[in-house]
Order: sequence, then structure tokens, then C-alpha cells
Amino acid sequence: MSKHLQRDLDHLKDELLAMGSMVESAINKAIAALIERNVELAEEVLEGDTQINLKENQIEEECLKILALHQPVAADLRFIIVALKVNNDLERIADLATNIAERSTYLSTHENLDATLDFSKMTEDVRDMVQGSLDSLVDQDTTLAQSVLSKDDDVDSINRKMFQTLQIHMKNKPETVERAVQLLSVSRYLERIADLATNIAEDVIFMVEGELIRHHFTSHHKEES
Amino acid sequence: MSKHLQRDLDHLKDELLAMGSMVESAINKAIAALIERNVELAEEVLEGDTQINLKENQIEEECLKILALHQPVAADLRFIIVALKVNNDLERIADLATNIAERSTYLSTHENLDATLDFSKMTEDVRDMVQGSLDSLVDQDTTLAQSVLSKDDDVDSINRKMFQTLQIHMKNKPETVERAVQLLSVSRYLERIADLATNIAEDVIFMVEGELIRHHFTSHHKEES
Repeated sequence: MSKHLQRDLDHLKDELLAMGSMVESAINKAIAALIERNVELAEEVLEGDTQINLKENQIEEECLKILALHQPVAADLRFIIVALKVNNDLERIADLATNIAERSTYLSTHENLDATLDFSKMTEDVRDMVQGSLDSLVDQDTTLAQSVLSKDDDVDSINRKMFQTLQIHMKNKPETVERAVQLLSVSRYLERIADLATNIAEDVIFMVEGELIRHHFTSHHKEES
Repeated sequence: MSKHLQRDLDHLKDELLAMGSMVESAINKAIAALIERNVELAEEVLEGDTQINLKENQIEEECLKILALHQPVAADLRFIIVALKVNNDLERIADLATNIAERSTYLSTHENLDATLDFSKMTEDVRDMVQGSLDSLVDQDTTLAQSVLSKDDDVDSINRKMFQTLQIHMKNKPETVERAVQLLSVSRYLERIADLATNIAEDVIFMVEGELIRHHFTSHHKEES
């Protein structure tokens, strides 16, 4: 690999990590805003989203530049394609954090719902999954990526339970419908963040294990070029 | 452009269109299943999803092959990156069609909800948006892509109205909460399909108009190579 390609790939990895940190911070703030009923934190999430969108565009441009300038093959090519997908998934996670922040603003300015909802376990799992998926990408660690995948079932199950609890609550106390619907939305947003972390982990596994599969193709490519 | 690259790009375009047709058919069936309360159609959507996932993987592999074999630059490179993103968005749309099919199975086996909900206008708009986004991609038609973007506001507004209507319904008839929550989900899934069609249209605009911006970079690249 050329020195210039190595330098550009290292820079891309750094940028993707910076994007990951921005997105993790957005999730943390959105969750804190929800749990602490803190409208100011929610506003910070909304304001920060523009920066994340800009960073997404910048990373995509960087991937295109590397492809055009260095025309990488095999593992390097696969890494860039995965970087493009992860970049896109991270931006979607940030959008969901924004959605949670919006709901939490509504909820913070309305009376608390008197229902037992396990948001702290759910948010902890979701945070672990996002962090785990990013760490697995940086370290190319498929064991960690696998553990992200297995955690997704837990989040799905908490989400289903949340739906059941909130539906019963709405039936018993119809006057809480609006707030309960907002909480249903939050639960679903968290479940979707978990799905996107799962996507990232799957891409990491595909990238690392795909290299074995790619060997055949790479030698084929060498014959043609 | 080499004859081989042209042939491979044409094939990729065909495959993407085939994927688009499969996804459009899944949406149409899921919507028909919902409106006609037809469980068999819903099952067809669920069964068809495996084929769509396989097609997604196949198209992604094809993009990687073209990148590795031909190392395209400028407009061709940008087209392949957009193809990768659109491929991903189409697979997500198919997942949402699957979700709608699941909800419609529940709804078809439970009593009809006595509420005025404008699903036919909403589904028509969503179908138009998906079809428009795919046509704009094939014809590189930014005017059509723009019209997809402007339709997204209509769908958002129908979704908001749907939420209001269903919340009032749940308050007045708490015994309908489960069915109303299923319908809320359907409305949200349709709104997300519209969002993904919007993503595709935005990528088309970026691809077509981005070529102007890329000229500078392309000449820079030529100097280096």
C-alpha cells in the first residue's frame, strides 16, 4: 500500500471516529434530556445535528476522493465501502437522537406518566451497542461485533414490553394517551438506534470475514489488470 | 469509458431497476393487504423479503467488483456510490413493507376501526414518491427528483393528522387502543418509506449536480495520475 493511501485511510478512520463521538454525545444528551426532563439538553441535541450532517457530507467526499485518487482494491476497497455505509448509519442514528430530544421536550413540559417503564436498562443497552459497534469497526473485532448482534434481541424485547405496558396504561387512563404515544415513539426510536448499531456490526463482520471470500476475486482481478 | 465498464454499468443499472420493481411490488402488496384486509397478500410480502435481501447483497458485490476491476472516476464513480446507497435504501423500504404486512395481518384478523383515516391518499403519495425517485435515478432527472422532495411534506402532514385522529379515537374508545397503535405504526412506516424515497431523490440531485462540482477535482486527479 502506498504511503499516501495509508495516510488517507488513517485520516478517514479518525474522521469516522470523530463522527462516532459526535453521535454518541447526541444520544447521551437526548437520553439525559428524557430521563432528567431537561429541555436545554434537548435543544443542544437539535442544535448539534447540523454539525453532524456536515461531517457526514465531508466523510462521504473523503471516501470518494480516496477511491478516485488511489483506486484501492481488496481489503482497502471494502473498508471504504463499509466506511460509507457506517457514515450513513451514524447520521441516521443522530436523526433518531434528534427525534428523542423532540419527544423529551414535549414530555418534560407535561406531567410525568405514572407507569413503570425500564428506559434506563434500554438506554444503557442501546448506548453499549452503538459504542460496541464503533469499537468493533476500529479494532476489526468480530467477537465484539457478534456481542452487539446478540444484544439486539434484548432491546427488541424491552421495546415489546414497553408497548404492552403503555397500551394497558392508555386503556386504563385514556387522558394520558398523548404522553403515552410520545413514550411509544421514544421506545421505537431507541429500538431503531439498536438496529442501526446492528447494521454497523454486521458490516464489520462482513468486512473482516469477507476478505477470505474476496481472495478468489482479487486473484481474478490481478489476472485481468 | 471502456466497453467493459459501459457493459458492467448498464448491467448494474438493470439490476437496480429489477430491485426497484421487487420493492415496488412489495409496497403495493403490503398496501393492498392493509386496505383489502387480505392476509394471504401480507404473507406474500413476508415470503418475498428473502429474495430482496439476496438481491441487495448481489448488487453490493457487483458495485465492489466494478470498483475493483475498472477503478472508475468522476461521474461513473459517483454513480456507483449512489447505486450502493440507493440499493441500501431500497432494502430498508422493503423491510418497512414487511412491517406494514405484519401490522395488516393483525388488523385483518381484528374488527375494523370506526375512524376516518386517509390511507388511500397517503399510500398513493408514497407509491408515487418511490416510483418517482427510481425514475429520476434512471433518467438522471433532477426536476422529477425535486417533485419527490416536495411531496414529502404532504406525507408528513397526513401522518401528523393520522396521529391526531387516532389519539382522539383512543381517548374516546379506550377498547380500541391496540388496533389504533397498529394503525399509528402503519402510518409511521409509510412516512418512513417517503423519507427513504426522499433520500434517493436527494442522492440523484447530488449525483447529477455534483458532477459540476467534481470537475475541479477530476482535473486535479488527472494531474496526479
